[in-house]
Amino acid sequence: MEAEFKDAEIFKRMMDATGNLMSDVSIDFNEEGFAIKAMDPANIAMVLFEAKNSIFSSFNIEKPIKISVSLDDLNGILKLVKKDDKLKISDSKNKLVLDIRGKTKQHFTIPLIDENYTAQKIPQLKFTAEVTVLSSLVKDSVKAAALVDDSIYFTVDMPRLIISSKSEEKEFSQDLSINDNKEIFDMKSESTTRSKYSIEYLTKFLYSADSEKPIKLSFSNNYPLKLDYEINSDAKMSFILANRLE
Amino acid sequence: MEAEFKDAEIFKRMMDATGNLMSDVSIDFNEEGFAIKAMDPANIAMVLFEAKNSIFSSFNIEKPIKISVSLDDLNGILKLVKKDDKLKISDSKNKLVLDIRGKTKQHFTIPLIDENYTAQKIPQLKFTAEVTVLSSLVKDSVKAAALVDDSIYFTVDMPRLIISSKSEEKEFSQDLSINDNKEIFDMKSESTTRSKYSIEYLTKFLYSADSEKPIKLSFSNNYPLKLDYEINSDAKMSFILANRLE
Amino acid sequence: MEAEFKDAEIFKRMMDATGNLMSDVSIDFNEEGFAIKAMDPANIAMVLFEAKNSIFSSFNIEKPIKISVSLDDLNGILKLVKKDDKLKISDSKNKLVLDIRGKTKQHFTIPLIDENYTAQKIPQLKFTAEVTVLSSLVKDSVKAAALVDDSIYFTVDMPRLIISSKSEEKEFSQDLSINDNKEIFDMKSESTTRSKYSIEYLTKFLYSADSEKPIKLSFSNNYPLKLDYEINSDAKMSFILANRLE
Repeated sequence: MEAEFKDAEIFKRMMDATGNLMSDVSIDFNEEGFAIKAMDPANIAMVLFEAKNSIFSSFNIEKPIKISVSLDDLNGILKLVKKDDKLKISDSKNKLVLDIRGKTKQHFTIPLIDENYTAQKIPQLKFTAEVTVLSSLVKDSVKAAALVDDSIYFTVDMPRLIISSKSEEKEFSQDLSINDNKEIFDMKSESTTRSKYSIEYLTKFLYSADSEKPIKLSFSNNYPLKLDYEINSDAKMSFILANRLE
Repeated sequence: MEAEFKDAEIFKRMMDATGNLMSDVSIDFNEEGFAIKAMDPANIAMVLFEAKNSIFSSFNIEKPIKISVSLDDLNGILKLVKKDDKLKISDSKNKLVLDIRGKTKQHFTIPLIDENYTAQKIPQLKFTAEVTVLSSLVKDSVKAAALVDDSIYFTVDMPRLIISSKSEEKEFSQDLSINDNKEIFDMKSESTTRSKYSIEYLTKFLYSADSEKPIKLSFSNNYPLKLDYEINSDAKMSFILANRLE
Repeated sequence: MEAEFKDAEIFKRMMDATGNLMSDVSIDFNEEGFAIKAMDPANIAMVLFEAKNSIFSSFNIEKPIKISVSLDDLNGILKLVKKDDKLKISDSKNKLVLDIRGKTKQHFTIPLIDENYTAQKIPQLKFTAEVTVLSSLVKDSVKAAALVDDSIYFTVDMPRLIISSKSEEKEFSQDLSINDNKEIFDMKSESTTRSKYSIEYLTKFLYSADSEKPIKLSFSNNYPLKLDYEINSDAKMSFILANRLE
C-alpha cells in the first residue's frame, strides 16, 4: 500500500481525534479508501471513521490491508507536517513509512504493532431523535454543563432541544428551539426523547469538530448516542457513546 | 432580588479579583447597588468593593439581602459570559440563579452557602501619604521587587516616590519624582512616609486593575496600605493590606 | 567596570542561552569587550561566547575583571528589560549593579559569587566537515529526530547532508543536497564524515539561534561538534558538544 494525501491536515485531524480516545489504532485500507472501527479501552465509546480514496492524490493498493500503529508515534510525526507539505504513507514489512515533503524531505519508519483488538462489530442502532446543530453550540453547552456535573442530558421535545445537567446542588439548562435558533439546522423526534451521556467523552469527540460546521446527534430514550460530522466531503467521522443510567 | 447587568464584564472583573483572595464571597445587595466587605482567610487583607445600581440595566429588590456563594462556582460560570452577552442574576430559595443570554440562553443555579464570616468592621484609617499613579508603573515595580524579596517598601519623600525592596544579598530600587514622571498624577505626604507590604497580596490586588488607568495608594509610616481603583464610574474597588514589620 | 549596552536584547539572548546550560556564569570583561568560556556541570558541553566592545554605547574598564553571578538572578532582571530600554551594568565591591532606564529607572544589585570553575581550557579541535545551514532547518530536523531517539547523526557525503536518528524500532532520516536545498549555504567535507550527538544539548544550543539566520556545524568522524552562530556582527556564540559513541 502506498498513499499520498491531497491534504494531510484531514488525516491529522482524524488521528488527533482518535488519539484522545485510544493509544493504538488499526486502519483498514482497501480500494475504496480507509476506515477505522475501534472501541475505546473502557468499552464505552466507539469510533467509526471513513475516508474515500478521493482523499488521496495517488493511491496504490494490491489487496486490503490492516495497519496498526501507536498513536503516540503517528501523531508525533503528523505534528511536524506543515501546511502545504505533502505526506505519503506506505507499508514495508513490519513498518509504516511516512514521507513528509516540504522544503526538505523527512523520512520516518515506525513499527507496526500486533493488533490486539478483535474486529469490532458495529452495533445496529435505531434512533428516535436526530438533531443537526452548529458544532460550537454543543461545545459551549458541554463546557457549561461540566461546571455542574460530569454528565449531560439531551432532550428533544419538538420544537425544543434542551441541553442540561444537574448535580445534587447545581443545575444548568439551555433551552433552544428550531424556530428561534438558526444554529439548529434540522431536528426530528418521534416523541419526547431524553438521554444522559458522559461529558468527558463528548469533549473528546468534539475536539476535532470544526466549530463553524454542523454535527449530528442521534439518540433515543436511555440509549446510546451517535455523533457524526464531516471533516470534508471525503472524510466522515462517527462516534458512538453508551448512555448513562439515569 | 433580580438584577441584570449593563456590562457583565465589570462584575466578572470584580469577582475575579475577589477569587484571588478568598474562596467564598458574600455580596450585600440593597437599593443603592451592591457591596462586598470581606477579610481574607489569613486576616491580612480586606476587600471593600462597591457598585452603584446604575451598573444594572434592570434591578428589582424588595429588601436588602446578603448572598453568599462559592467563588469557584460563580467564576466558573462568569468565564462563559462572552462580550455583548447579557447576564441576569436572581435569588430563589437557597439558590443563586444566573441567566446568560447571548446567541442562546444558558440557565444556571448554584447553591447559596452559609455565611461564616461575621460582619466585617471596616477599620478607620488615617493616612499621611497619598499617591495616585498609573497602575502599570506599580505592576512593573512589584514584579521587579519580587526578584529580590517577598516584600516591598513604598516611600514618599516629596517630591519623590521610592519603591524598593531589599534582602540580605540583593537590592532593588526605583526612584520617581512627580516632577519628572508623568505616570504620577498626584502625590502628597505630610512628611517622609515609609512602609513595607507583602508582594504576594499586592500582586493579587493589582490583578484586575487596568494597566492604563490610575490607582491610588494611601499609607502612613509602618501602617496599613489602602489601594483604590475604579473599574468604571459605577464600580469602585478598595483593598486594605496590613503592613509588615520592618 | 561600567558598561552600557547599545541593545540589551543581545545580552539577554546570550545569557538566556547560557541559562539553559548552567546555573552560574563567569563573564570576563577586558578592553576588547567580554567573553564567556564555561563547561556545563555534566562536562559534556562548552559555551564560548564573545562580544566586542562595539556592543556597548559606553564602556569604562580599568583592568580586566571576571564577574560571576547566578543566572537565576541575572536572567530574572533581564526579563524586565523592555524594547528600547537602556541597560547599564557595573561592579561595586561584591555586587553587580544593573540599571534599567526606560520610562522609569530601575536599579538592582545582585551578589557576585565565588567562581568555582577553574579556567576552562578550550580544546584544540580540527574538523573534517563544515556545514553552514539555515538555523530553522536544523531546528526542525532535531525536533523530528527526537521522536525516534535521544541522539542524532550528522553525515556529510558531498554533496549530501544527511540528518538522521535510529532506535531499535524507529527511524528518521532527512536527505539534503547543497545542489537542491537553498537552506544550505556552504558545505565541505574531506571524505564521508559522520558523528552522533545528544539531542537534548543541541536543542539547548539552538534555543537562542534566530531561525532565519545561518548556523555553522563543524565536526569530524566520531568527534566533538562545534556549533557557531552570530547574534549580530558584534556578538558570536559557539558551543562545543562531546560526540556520542556509536
